[in-house]
Amino acid sequence: MPKTPFRLALFALLLGAAAAPQGAVLSPGEIVAAAPADAWRPVAPENLLVMDIAGGAQVTIELAPAFAPVHVANIRALVRAGWFDHGSIERVQDDYVVQWAGADEKRALPAGVVAHPPAEYERPLAGLAFRPLASRDAYAAQVGHGDGWPVANDGRLAWLTHCYGMVGVGRDMPPDTGTGSELYTVIGQAPRHLDRNIALVGRIVEGIEVLTALRRGTGDLGFYTDPKQHTAIVRVRIAADMPASERPRFEVMRSDAPSFARYLDARANRRDAFFVRPAGGIDLCNAPVPVRRRR
Amino acid sequence: MPKTPFRLALFALLLGAAAAPQGAVLSPGEIVAAAPADAWRPVAPENLLVMDIAGGAQVTIELAPAFAPVHVANIRALVRAGWFDHGSIERVQDDYVVQWAGADEKRALPAGVVAHPPAEYERPLAGLAFRPLASRDAYAAQVGHGDGWPVANDGRLAWLTHCYGMVGVGRDMPPDTGTGSELYTVIGQAPRHLDRNIALVGRIVEGIEVLTALRRGTGDLGFYTDPKQHTAIVRVRIAADMPASERPRFEVMRSDAPSFARYLDARANRRDAFFVRPAGGIDLCNAPVPVRRRR
Repeated sequence: MPKTPFRLALFALLLGAAAAPQGAVLSPGEIVAAAPADAWRPVAPENLLVMDIAGGAQVTIELAPAFAPVHVANIRALVRAGWFDHGSIERVQDDYVVQWAGADEKRALPAGVVAHPPAEYERPLAGLAFRPLASRDAYAAQVGHGDGWPVANDGRLAWLTHCYGMVGVGRDMPPDTGTGSELYTVIGQAPRHLDRNIALVGRIVEGIEVLTALRRGTGDLGFYTDPKQHTAIVRVRIAADMPASERPRFEVMRSDAPSFARYLDARANRRDAFFVRPAGGIDLCNAPVPVRRRR
Repeated sequence: MPKTPFRLALFALLLGAAAAPQGAVLSPGEIVAAAPADAWRPVAPENLLVMDIAGGAQVTIELAPAFAPVHVANIRALVRAGWFDHGSIERVQDDYVVQWAGADEKRALPAGVVAHPPAEYERPLAGLAFRPLASRDAYAAQVGHGDGWPVANDGRLAWLTHCYGMVGVGRDMPPDTGTGSELYTVIGQAPRHLDRNIALVGRIVEGIEVLTALRRGTGDLGFYTDPKQHTAIVRVRIAADMPASERPRFEVMRSDAPSFARYLDARANRRDAFFVRPAGGIDLCNAPVPVRRRR
């Protein structure tokens, strides 16, 4: 761990400076900064949730309709009906999850919300632009990235994985699959044992530190013991419903772009001067897909 | 993700209730709660650091002299010379590390501190009570637990791994190895690419949520941009130096205990009613070694 940022001109480069000298070994951050326009895909405004938190902070989520279409459609309908407005963050369990819900879980579901969605825990591998990772995985025969998402597969079916910042749907005991009226995100070591057991529906693309720095709940499973401890959600909007001038715009690196392959290689084999021994491999959840905000 | 704790009698059991009915499938927490006395080893008071944080919170760290003896001896000497008293937490990088230091990094090192310790990044596998994990790992030929620590090895050498809560020694560019005068802990997805590149010296056994809930630094590498944002360290003590009546006492589950094998199996194959598909494997850093405080 670098002792201070000031002695670290070389290491700090990986934070995004694109001014690497010709022929230099590029760090992961430099590769991302130098990636051409066609290495990126835009996040569709219909897939972007903008959550305003009390105090002015904002958390932005990309939805993944290609993996959980019914749950994602439910979430859009819930958001458009104002379900999460005046809601709250009610659970913060250290090294595990932050979970939030609408103002009143007992309200009738808005029109258009499917009360019992199918268990969208897997999808066919076919049809996904899948890029395998060479490294071994403790949980699946093969892992890698598909359409810019962290994905595991068994050769036939593919599923999103519970990496840091991924967003999933709270549910009760099976056969319940959750409607999307309660959501959570991962804030610690990837709880991959939840893969294929819960519908993952997206990932946080900006603002996760608003959630991860919240006081941990002291009740069972990290729920707060007193609603006064909750953090208020002011409102949640879909970017497509916001005036174009206010819409945040994000791009995700295409997992089939050559820049992405170089980025993964550089992350698995750190050649920065700080490192004495590159790892030669990388865990799927230690290879987050680059995301950038467009101004 | 369970929607609320109240509907979750079954799932909540894993939090520690030991009253499972005869013949029932035990959850990881139940196995830990039911483990016999000889499944545990005490943490030697000489290996326990007690860090008092401004506001009354406490963070407790177990040192690992079997892996980094010179660095650990340095840390003990630094603590006993008051190095960390009135120090500060100066870096909080989301999904990565929290880092802290003494009050003045430019002070002369106290007597007995080795200025240039060897690179204690590995040790012989021989001599370690190593229990391999069956699951595959992205970074090492074999991983598992040795003497109650998360360990990777190549058949000859063994090393501690950068799992959540592990504590390491900040250093400058190599050949610097750090003295122990700045320490960090992991607060996100295991940055295993740091394994064998930095000296790991222990783990947090209590109070990590004091650190993980701190506001993230906005400077390079998550350093705070203004010292006013630092969190003050009141003092750091070694439990052995505290009056016996004040000493915290901890026990770590022995990785060679049958209870530990059962715990790992239950974590890899969740049989709680919440799960529809047990994973059948587990990542090393998703198998934290149980630790308990003795009152």
